[in-house]
Amino acid sequence: MQGSVEMVRVIRGGRVESVHRGAAVVCDARGAVVEAWGDPDAVIYPRSSCKMVQALPLVEAGLERDPRRLALACASHGGEAMHTRGAAEWLADLGLGEADLRCGAHMPYEADAAAALVRAGEAPCQLHNNCSGKHAGFLALSRHLGAGPDYVEPDHPVQRAVRAAFEEVTGEESPGYGIDGCSAPNFATRLAGLGAAMGRFAGAGEGDARGRAMVMLREAMALNPALVAGTGRACTGLMEAMDGVAVKTGAEGVYVAILPARGLGVALKIADGATRAAEAVAATLLVRLGALDPQSAVARRLTHGPIVNCRGRETGHMEVAL
Amino acid sequence: MQGSVEMVRVIRGGRVESVHRGAAVVCDARGAVVEAWGDPDAVIYPRSSCKMVQALPLVEAGLERDPRRLALACASHGGEAMHTRGAAEWLADLGLGEADLRCGAHMPYEADAAAALVRAGEAPCQLHNNCSGKHAGFLALSRHLGAGPDYVEPDHPVQRAVRAAFEEVTGEESPGYGIDGCSAPNFATRLAGLGAAMGRFAGAGEGDARGRAMVMLREAMALNPALVAGTGRACTGLMEAMDGVAVKTGAEGVYVAILPARGLGVALKIADGATRAAEAVAATLLVRLGALDPQSAVARRLTHGPIVNCRGRETGHMEVAL
Repeated sequence: MQGSVEMVRVIRGGRVESVHRGAAVVCDARGAVVEAWGDPDAVIYPRSSCKMVQALPLVEAGLERDPRRLALACASHGGEAMHTRGAAEWLADLGLGEADLRCGAHMPYEADAAAALVRAGEAPCQLHNNCSGKHAGFLALSRHLGAGPDYVEPDHPVQRAVRAAFEEVTGEESPGYGIDGCSAPNFATRLAGLGAAMGRFAGAGEGDARGRAMVMLREAMALNPALVAGTGRACTGLMEAMDGVAVKTGAEGVYVAILPARGLGVALKIADGATRAAEAVAATLLVRLGALDPQSAVARRLTHGPIVNCRGRETGHMEVAL
Repeated sequence: MQGSVEMVRVIRGGRVESVHRGAAVVCDARGAVVEAWGDPDAVIYPRSSCKMVQALPLVEAGLERDPRRLALACASHGGEAMHTRGAAEWLADLGLGEADLRCGAHMPYEADAAAALVRAGEAPCQLHNNCSGKHAGFLALSRHLGAGPDYVEPDHPVQRAVRAAFEEVTGEESPGYGIDGCSAPNFATRLAGLGAAMGRFAGAGEGDARGRAMVMLREAMALNPALVAGTGRACTGLMEAMDGVAVKTGAEGVYVAILPARGLGVALKIADGATRAAEAVAATLLVRLGALDPQSAVARRLTHGPIVNCRGRETGHMEVAL
């Protein structure tokens, strides 16, 4: 990753054991970069951090208003019962089922949900995929558009609509896409483009359909932290500890935040893809921007990142320096 | 980490998504650096990569010669039945049991072993800890030394013996230690020191007790690849694909190799601690040094590092450039 700077040190025995480099931007409501670490022009894949962008066509078409479903559409969820049931009910309301999904199956992220499947001797299904809510939303849009079943193909009307929305809110033409873990195309952008999108979400008002959709999505996320991620997860803990702020993780070390009260958006990418570092930097920026109490348990946990050994002793921790 | 260089690129959709930096050395049988990438003077924790060093006092005292037990002493194992049974039998022969271990418990690394525990409704015990073989060896040495039960304390005679051996084979005084995941002290060294230790293991002969112990340990590892790691693991696959070469992973992106036929040792550390990158660089160096067939399945898998999505499609891969 070009233009990254050292952001996180992992300490053990008073000595730096590992380091994480990355880049981050804070953008205002017009999409302008107001603060940056590393290169804002670095081209990245947002991965799951842009699910609220991918959900814009669904909401703008007036297809869904239920905040719980919108939260699920923006989720990288743990495959807990609240998540799989929500996705299954949404599909049933569309007259569809699990087999219509194209996300593939993986074991639930959440440990108890995974253990329950193992005890039952059952394999995970596509509802357990952390993206099943996003895909239910894709299917709702696909039916509305009268399009074919393979809604993850990059030239499918659903993905063309997603790309158009993505390029509008990032303010730039995407240089291309990669295929994500859930088989959907994931459009590349400059880091500053992703930050601009988050700034625009933060500044959105009720003036037009785009603005109303952005408000609905950011509020749905902030009001349903457990649906957006799940038990024990950083996104859930952060949103529970803040007021009206939406945050979202993405694979390979991406993290974003939408701060409506301050009219600011945040986007960051850890060069090596480490989630531990992305969470630590995100929490640090949220504290710095006044949205997160530095004394809150989640802030202390994520920024300090204690490393605890098998006998419960803290053997290391992280330090974030921006 | 000072003096790291870019070593691995993670590619998705024809674009670099993430990068890993690191440093590596190849050392000869006298411990001299013969080739280096990045800074050989970088101070690192070897973590589990130095278990064959930690086992030297055990072997030099003549306490254990069974190659399977020596392989377990050097293992970061998957907690499969072959591992837990081996550790349990060793402890029983010492007149000790699981409760005498000080490594703590964690779920088996190996998926089927973990699932079996979940299905049985059982919690993991200390035998499942990936370090239980190393700790059985520590207990054997502790009994021989007539020392107390808390053998992981840094000033315990067992750890004093380990430190002495570590400093002799690295050729330098350790600047200090961190506490490892298994509660044992892990002594820091320059990367070149760890490489020198591996070079000395590679060049060891039968001339003295140290040399004989080194030969026994490297042969025990190379002849028992499944005991050193386990099903599906990189160390096991690499040793199965090579002849007489011992390799070992360590947490936070460390990897070492002992190549007796070439009289060379390898040590590397990925700056951000990523195992995927450490394995890719290790396999690339083993190919480069002529020990690993580049067309072997394990070489192709580890150096290419295919990223496969939930529907079985390859969505990304790694590229190693040294």
